[in-house]
Order: sequence, then structure tokens, then C-alpha cells
Amino acid sequence: MSDSRIASYVDANATRFLDELKDLLRIPSISTLPEHAQDMQRAGQFLVDQLQQRVGLAQSGLIATAGHPLVYAESAMDPARPTVLIYGHYDVQPVDPIELWHSPPFEPTIVGERIRARGAVDDKGPTMAVIKALETLHQTGGLPVNVRVLLEGEEECGGAAIAAYVQSHAAELHADCALVLDTGMIAPDQPTMTYGLRGILYCEIIATGASHDLHSGVYGGIGPNPLQALAWVLADLKGRDGRIAIPGLYEQIRPLSALERAALARQSDDMARRLAAAAGLSELPGETGYNVAERASARPSFEVHGIRGGFTGEGVKTVIPATATAKVSLRLVPDQMPDTVLAQLQARVRELAPPAVTMEVRLIHGGDAIVFSPDAPILRAAATALEEEFGRPAEFVREGGSIPVVALFDSLLHLPVVMLGFSLPDDSVHAPNESFFVPNYYAAIRSVAGFLSNLGRTR
Amino acid sequence: MSDSRIASYVDANATRFLDELKDLLRIPSISTLPEHAQDMQRAGQFLVDQLQQRVGLAQSGLIATAGHPLVYAESAMDPARPTVLIYGHYDVQPVDPIELWHSPPFEPTIVGERIRARGAVDDKGPTMAVIKALETLHQTGGLPVNVRVLLEGEEECGGAAIAAYVQSHAAELHADCALVLDTGMIAPDQPTMTYGLRGILYCEIIATGASHDLHSGVYGGIGPNPLQALAWVLADLKGRDGRIAIPGLYEQIRPLSALERAALARQSDDMARRLAAAAGLSELPGETGYNVAERASARPSFEVHGIRGGFTGEGVKTVIPATATAKVSLRLVPDQMPDTVLAQLQARVRELAPPAVTMEVRLIHGGDAIVFSPDAPILRAAATALEEEFGRPAEFVREGGSIPVVALFDSLLHLPVVMLGFSLPDDSVHAPNESFFVPNYYAAIRSVAGFLSNLGRTR
Repeated sequence: MSDSRIASYVDANATRFLDELKDLLRIPSISTLPEHAQDMQRAGQFLVDQLQQRVGLAQSGLIATAGHPLVYAESAMDPARPTVLIYGHYDVQPVDPIELWHSPPFEPTIVGERIRARGAVDDKGPTMAVIKALETLHQTGGLPVNVRVLLEGEEECGGAAIAAYVQSHAAELHADCALVLDTGMIAPDQPTMTYGLRGILYCEIIATGASHDLHSGVYGGIGPNPLQALAWVLADLKGRDGRIAIPGLYEQIRPLSALERAALARQSDDMARRLAAAAGLSELPGETGYNVAERASARPSFEVHGIRGGFTGEGVKTVIPATATAKVSLRLVPDQMPDTVLAQLQARVRELAPPAVTMEVRLIHGGDAIVFSPDAPILRAAATALEEEFGRPAEFVREGGSIPVVALFDSLLHLPVVMLGFSLPDDSVHAPNESFFVPNYYAAIRSVAGFLSNLGRTR
Repeated sequence: MSDSRIASYVDANATRFLDELKDLLRIPSISTLPEHAQDMQRAGQFLVDQLQQRVGLAQSGLIATAGHPLVYAESAMDPARPTVLIYGHYDVQPVDPIELWHSPPFEPTIVGERIRARGAVDDKGPTMAVIKALETLHQTGGLPVNVRVLLEGEEECGGAAIAAYVQSHAAELHADCALVLDTGMIAPDQPTMTYGLRGILYCEIIATGASHDLHSGVYGGIGPNPLQALAWVLADLKGRDGRIAIPGLYEQIRPLSALERAALARQSDDMARRLAAAAGLSELPGETGYNVAERASARPSFEVHGIRGGFTGEGVKTVIPATATAKVSLRLVPDQMPDTVLAQLQARVRELAPPAVTMEVRLIHGGDAIVFSPDAPILRAAATALEEEFGRPAEFVREGGSIPVVALFDSLLHLPVVMLGFSLPDDSVHAPNESFFVPNYYAAIRSVAGFLSNLGRTR
């Protein structure tokens, strides 16, 4: 049984594994800032060297793109073994506000059981954990599966390069599943597998009244006001009971299984407590009749993100704007299709527009909801590895947001995606003093190695 | 009878009167632009010279202020005669977009029966018309009333100087009435007297949810959304029937007299046609049960001017803002007091705030509604002069906006204010190619001279 060999190798190399993560964390690979372009190259090359020298993947290199390079590596392909497409990203968020950091963001600092640095947990730690898992397997009997490693440097700035690459190389990226390490654990010690993501429909509602801005001294009480019209329409689209009042919207929702509903009920109180505390709230309002976990992941949402038009500066301007625009989104759940919901929203907004105001709904972005079967053998293999590592069963969760690369692998490569997450709620992702719980680094290494071993045994 | 002498003097001096207006129009006295500070001085001095040399008011001069100078002149004070405080302004709006002007804005150009220049009708033409009326009276038997002439150079940039001056010199500005020439005629050939103005309550409604901005991937469906909360509250504050749903709001309204209601009914269709056309609309929506003229001047209005918070740029950002602010105003009618309405609005908004969102209403600016009795002898004297000039009775109107200097004279000096207006709906006030209908220049001169003559005879 390989488990003890894996654990022994990780133990024996624990210090070096952490040192090599520190080396990567010292490279300020901030993808949105042009002055860090050379750092992006350095970080990419560091990973190529790791894959070549530590994992023995001779076929490793940087792939030039219109933006920052992709890292690609593959093992020899044994047709008898399953193939796994492994994803991570080596770019990080900017560090502002820098004055809130307790140590320099690119000088990795050990504080208790944590390692603090920008990118520690998002996503250099998990990415290095996969590489160290591959190294461990390589050194303890060889890789049990074929791997394709594809790491991007633009996750924090739009992901254009990987989207273009996957689109144009779909056939060459053939695999049996994908492994994405960029999610979280719902609580310390609670292994977590994300098996579903909400989709999104992001739109603008454009309200137009008069041919030019009006003055409320003349037109107050007689002129159409697109801002007031948007208030009426937004209030009618979502009531105070949290129900989205778009006919047909709820009819397309795939019902939850009894098991899913039970899991959400089990998770909801903790989740509500944690998310309320993080937002400084004593309650989390929303659709009546559903608990917080359901509302956050398994129910569609309707949110207003901004309203443009008129005057929002300091002081007084009595303008009635000719036009006003609301940016809104719906988070979607299976089987709500963005196109269908867009048409439903457009029809409803047309009905709700008041006299003398025209309203148009313009699509900005749409993405499908995704849900993988928790019972699929590939997800079970991952869950087993997590349970072996943590000593308790993995909790299966659906997340409320979307992960573009998962949508990409799903829609273009038609792969089941295993999402293993090791970040904790208090890791300060995207914030000052980002850190990674070091025991989770080693847990991730062992879990991924265990998962790939389990997967190798499924054939 | 002085009327024929007035008419003869105006006829005999018509060309010079227009030439002197052109001289004033050539001075680019744009009060908001610091580079025109010297032009402001020149324009003020031009008017001082006119008042001294043409009207014979030895007591004329510029009054230095923290901003642009005031022009002040007064006649000898005969206690047997009524005293009139005369107001006008010599500053003008900027000229942008300059490329839309058909002739240079500070080269007055005669086009048909119009004189085109920035400030032609707002307010250099009417201001010069008063001075020429005073000259005419001075040259045809002497001024029939005592006058104080107070002209400002900051009407287009806030009016701070005149407000401070009137406040600190209220006793010295004692008069029986004020005369303000800065309003309009509802149609060509229809003499118009404005006898009422709406007040205003301008506020911000500040909605606060979480302690920091949230992401709809995590909080969509469970987090409080201040923008959605504002939509609910704004929709509840004013229904689709145009009624303002603030308890007690309509109870304080002074009922219209039968005569006022009849006048508004008579004016409404024309007004609706004109204002709809000017705004590119086929209808003017608003409170059910009231015609357009009533809604625009004699009913309170509630308008949203802007909503700040969240993301309004191009593209996608799925933020749920921690806070959002709506700028709103109510136009008020007698006897609605801003303080009372503010308290009513605050109480109502508190009631309407949804769970997990706090709402605060912050006062930005308040101003009382004003209505003068159309039957007061001073207003009748003005109406008679207009009827003599135009050959038809003046229409008495209430305007939907407010005029700060009228509120100032009303609240600090407690004067009835005669508002005589000679601008026409198509004069392009504040817009490119502003012009003044030249026959109205002479009509204004004769009307003001006639009014002051009538006023002199009331004692």
C-alpha cells in the first residue's frame, strides 16, 4: 500500500517542500501590473523547472500567449491509465493596501502554523502542493496516472490566455477528468469537495425617458424619471420576500435530491454564522422558505450591482436624467439556461416599464451552472483520499459563485472536474496578510497523491 | 398721461438702447471661470456708468464682495413715494459647446427679430431693459418711485455674495416691493406674471448593509443589498400612480382658489404640449387626478436625481455594495414646510427599511415655497402695465422651480416680489445660440416704466 510510502516521503522532505514554496512566493507575480511582466516569466519558469527536475516531466515548458505564459507539462501517455488534467495558477492579486500588511507580502513569513505571503493560499500553495504530490508519487513508485499539467498566469486578470488555448487545443488536451485546486474548506478539519457551481446572467437594464436631461424645477411631477422607473422595476423583479418575480424562472430548477437537501441543512447554521460574522451582520436576509446554505448555492439569486445616471456628486443638482442604467445579475442553478432566463427577464422588464419610459435589457455575460454527480467514481476517489487524510468524510458542497476555468473545462473539454480545496475561511484571500495553514499544505500534498493513487487503481 | 411720452422716448432712442445692450453683451462676464474676473469688473462698471450717466443716480457704485462685485444704486428717497428694490444679474453661463454657436457668443448678432449672444435674455437684456426704463422715466418727468438697484454677478454660480449682503444689510434695503426680471412668458404675446414658486427639500437617503462590499458569488441571495433596498424604498415612497406615499404629506397643502384652479386648467393643455415636445415625449406621466399645469407648479413632486454605490463601469463586477446613496428631492407647495416634510420623510424611510439594512435621511438643502397674492395692489399695478403693453390680460402663473433671490427677498426682507418675465420658450437659455426677441426688449422697457408709473400713482 502506497499510503505509508507517501506519508514517509512527505515527512522526510517537509522542510524542503516548504522552502520551495517560499522560493515561489518570493516572486512578485502580480498579473495585473505591467511592471511585473518579468516576474511572471520567472514564476512560470520556476514551475517548469520544478516539473522537469522534481517530477521528471521532460515535456515541460512555457507556452507564449498574448498575455502571460502558460506552463504546460505532460507525462508519457500510457493508454492503460486514466489521464488527469491538472490546473493551478501562479499569478497573484496586487498587495494594496500595503500598509496593512504585518510583514512584506513577498517575504514569506512563518507565523505560528501559518505561512504569510501574497499568493500563499491563492493559488501558489495549492499549486505547489500538486507538484509536490506528483514528485512524491514519482519518487515512490512512479506516477499512477497520466498527467497533463496546465497552469495559468492570468487567473486574477481575466484568464484570456487559457481560454484561447483550451479552445484551440481541445483535442490535444484529452483527459478523463480535471483536477482544480482553487477552492476552500467549509471549516478547519472538515474536508470539502465542491461538486457544483452556480451559473450567471449579467445584464444591464437601460431605462430611457426624455430626449435629454430635464430639470426638476420644470419637470418635477410631470417628466418621466428613469431612476424612479428602475426603482419600480427592480422592486417588482424581486420582492421583499426575496422571491424573484420573473414568470417561469423557478420552473426550470432541477430539484435537489434528499441527500443534497440533508447536506445543505447540516451545513447551513455554521455557514450562516460564519458568513454573517464576516460581513458584520446579525442576520442574512433572503428568500423565505429556504435556509442560508440553499439560498447561497442551490437557489437562483437576483442582485443589483450599480445604478448609473443623473447626479451623484456632492451637493445639489436637480436633474432628472434622460437615461439610467442598472447593472444586475442572476446567479443560476441547474437546469436554468442563461439564454432562457435572459428572454424571461427581457419580457418581464418590458411588461414592467412605466408609461413614457422605454426599457431594454442588454446581455453582458452569461455562464451555465455546473453540477457534477457526487456519486461519480472519480469524485468518490477524491472523497476517499480526503477521508483517509482527515479521518472524517468529506462534505460535498455547491458553491454560490462560478470558477471560469471549471466552466471552460466543462463546456469545451466535457470533463468532470474534481475541485479539492484547502483554503480556510480566515486565510484573507485577496486581502492584506494572506496566509496558508501549513498543515493544509502537507494535507493537500498527501490528499492529491492519494487521490491519483486511488484513481490509478480504478482501471 | 405719461404713457405716450414713455413710448415716444423709447421710439426715439430705440437704436441707442439696442447698441448699449450690445456693448454689455460684448463683455464675456462668465462668473464661473476665474479667467473672466476682470470681465466681471468691466461689466459691473458698465452698469454703474449707465445708472449714473443715463438714470442720473449719483449714488451708484460697485460693492466688493468675497466673489464678484455687486452693483448698487439708489435714488433720493422721498418718503411720500413707494420704494422699489430692483434686481437683475450681469453674469452669464459658459458658452460650451462653442462649436454649436452660429456666431461668436460675445459678438451680438441680429438675426431677424432676435439678438443672439450669450446672456442676451439671461439676464443682460432684461437687466438693461430695467435701466432703460429708469432712464426713460428720468428723462420724461422723473422717477415716480424711489428705487434701489441691486445687481449681482453670481447668479450662475451660487449667489453667495448677494445672499451675504442682503443678510447683513437687511435694514438698509428697506422697500415696499421688489422687482425681479428673470422669468419667462408662457407663450409669445402672452404677458405673464409669476406669483408663486415651489420650495424644495433636497436629501440623501443612505442605505447601509454589510460592513464591507460583498461578492455575489458568496452572498448572492443571502446578503443585504443596499441598492435593492433603495429600489424597494423609492418604489414605496412614490407609487406608479404618482402619489407620494408619505403619511401627512398632502395634509399641509393650502387649497387652490377656484380662480387659480381655473387658470391652471386654462394653461395646462398648451403647457403640456410645449413641455412634452421640448422633452421629445408623447405624454407627461404623473399623479393621477391632476392636470399637467397643476402637477408642475401647485402639487408637490418627488424625484430621484442619482444613486451612488456599487459598480457602474463597463463590463462585469459582481459586487454587492456595503452602502448606497440616493439623492432625492421633493418640490414643495404652500404651506408645506421643509422641516416638517423632512421629519415625515425620515420617519417613513425608517419604517420602509428592510431587514439588515439601516437607512438614514440626510438634509442637503431646504427652501420654502412662496406664493404672493395675485390680488395685491402691487401685483395688480404690474399686471395693468403688462396689459397696456400687450393688449391682453396677463396670465398669472406659478413656477415649478425656485428662484433663490426671490426666496432671499421674501425670507430676509419680507417683500412682495413682482416677477416680470420676457424670455420666450425658444430663447435657448443656458444653451448655444441664446437669443432675445428684440420686440420684447422694448416691451420690457415700456412695461417696467409703466409699472413704476402705476406704482407711483398708488400713493
